[in-house]
Amino acid sequence: MHSVGRSWLLLTGFILFYIIYLLFGALAFSSIERPMEDKLRHDIERLKEEFLNQSCVSAASLELFLNKVLTANKYGVSVLHNSSARSNWDLASSMFFANTLVTTVGYGHPTPLSDAGKAFSIVYALIGVPFTMLVLTACVQRCMQPLVLAPVNLLQRSGLKPRPATVLHFILLLIVVVLCFFLAPAAVFNVVEASWSFLDGVYFCFISLCTIGLGDFVPAAQPGQQYRALYQLAVMVYLFVGLMMMYLLLRTFHKMADVHGLTTLLQLPRCEESVLEEDTEPIVNNGPSPRLKDKPASKPLDPGSQPSYNSINKG
Amino acid sequence: MHSVGRSWLLLTGFILFYIIYLLFGALAFSSIERPMEDKLRHDIERLKEEFLNQSCVSAASLELFLNKVLTANKYGVSVLHNSSARSNWDLASSMFFANTLVTTVGYGHPTPLSDAGKAFSIVYALIGVPFTMLVLTACVQRCMQPLVLAPVNLLQRSGLKPRPATVLHFILLLIVVVLCFFLAPAAVFNVVEASWSFLDGVYFCFISLCTIGLGDFVPAAQPGQQYRALYQLAVMVYLFVGLMMMYLLLRTFHKMADVHGLTTLLQLPRCEESVLEEDTEPIVNNGPSPRLKDKPASKPLDPGSQPSYNSINKG
Repeated sequence: MHSVGRSWLLLTGFILFYIIYLLFGALAFSSIERPMEDKLRHDIERLKEEFLNQSCVSAASLELFLNKVLTANKYGVSVLHNSSARSNWDLASSMFFANTLVTTVGYGHPTPLSDAGKAFSIVYALIGVPFTMLVLTACVQRCMQPLVLAPVNLLQRSGLKPRPATVLHFILLLIVVVLCFFLAPAAVFNVVEASWSFLDGVYFCFISLCTIGLGDFVPAAQPGQQYRALYQLAVMVYLFVGLMMMYLLLRTFHKMADVHGLTTLLQLPRCEESVLEEDTEPIVNNGPSPRLKDKPASKPLDPGSQPSYNSINKG
Repeated sequence: MHSVGRSWLLLTGFILFYIIYLLFGALAFSSIERPMEDKLRHDIERLKEEFLNQSCVSAASLELFLNKVLTANKYGVSVLHNSSARSNWDLASSMFFANTLVTTVGYGHPTPLSDAGKAFSIVYALIGVPFTMLVLTACVQRCMQPLVLAPVNLLQRSGLKPRPATVLHFILLLIVVVLCFFLAPAAVFNVVEASWSFLDGVYFCFISLCTIGLGDFVPAAQPGQQYRALYQLAVMVYLFVGLMMMYLLLRTFHKMADVHGLTTLLQLPRCEESVLEEDTEPIVNNGPSPRLKDKPASKPLDPGSQPSYNSINKG
């Protein structure tokens, strides 16, 4: 029990540190970017007033005005009247931005305006991205027993052979993930975001959970949304749990591919034990070093040498 | 030699299929999105003309005009005069977009306009993202011997102990990657892209190779750039090789962490052999199933049971 306790303590520590790191990022980004944003917003509003006050609009003056409008828009400052009160760098929005950085989703709305913000983004992601991967890996590891190993064992005990059991389990898990992390959230976004269709919602969920993060659909970006900070927090939790489930799905697929011999066929590292030469060979060498040129670039896989393989074939 | 040949044949096949898949994506995206883009561009130009022709500009008409301009801009159609001739969905740009989808970088400039484009993006990424990961994994695997194992052996033969050898090798690899994939490309972008500072270049390289892809800096997006298609192709190759090197760096770090006992300390799967319960235990169970409630949630790590650990401690 001691080690189980230590394992959960470590995970809780990871998650707590993750939240603290996001809060720190939120504070830092907010304090770096907010003054720049205020200045840009003030400039663009003054420019708009000047543009409206001029007696005749020439093509050249319109071009110049639109150029500045589009530049400000690139940095998340909209010239439109109804969005002028909203900041992209309040605490919740900054935390949302920090979260999209460390999860590598990166919608790009908003983006840092200042050089200091850009430099800080690099340093912040440099620590945050590997740490987030670490937290996600640790979480997925704790979910493998209840969500993968136990159900497969259950299916086997109900009379299924090993290979069909893994396939059936993967299909069931896939259905649950699609329902809970794509279709259900898409329906919620369809209701909450006025301009999003159901397809837009599915598209947003997919593009986010694959960490592509195009940024053409970003939640809580419409003006006048209620409980905006709470909504952004909910999306952040959705992104984290969703990414965890995607990673779990990937690992389950990898394990299933192992069982079916797919990884061996494609000469890739296996999920349970890596069997290719560069993986089985320790990185350091304590005995006399073999001459490198005598070694083949990659070692053939001998199915007979893989115990879990043999046990499958027997099953 | 037979299996070495098969291994390289497989890799060549993967890369060829990857290129064909990108070309197919380029053709599909171009044919789906180009008509929509042309229509939007035509609409926005007509709107601009109408706006210029009106006798007086009211705040309301400006607001309406700017709203449409910003919506068009979101889909990559700029109202500015100097960028009106350039399409975001020519073959090279579409291929660039397909590439940012499958690598999960996802700058978001441009983004699909039509529902058909969004649906196709989902299907395309659904196949493309795992396949790209497969190609990258296969490439990294072939690079492990010449870039990681051989240099570490060389350092050991020159008299270094195993642990310092792995650390020194990792630092050297890190320096090479930073120089060749961050600083050198940043210098090139600084020259090629008129409005990018050197910091912008470093920021772009970092944000891209971490697959965050904010999209505030996208190469070949300025109007009037020469050899645009060739330039986009070069950036695509840079992205692919860069991502490969980032993955190699990550695996090298993981292997180094194994050697130094860091993964054991954090109770994470090891790089060479996974030692945690859910990894050592086969996913399928051929014997009588143990009662799940009797099993601890996670198994303690016994350093004595790890052969490569013992060999390191001896070294």
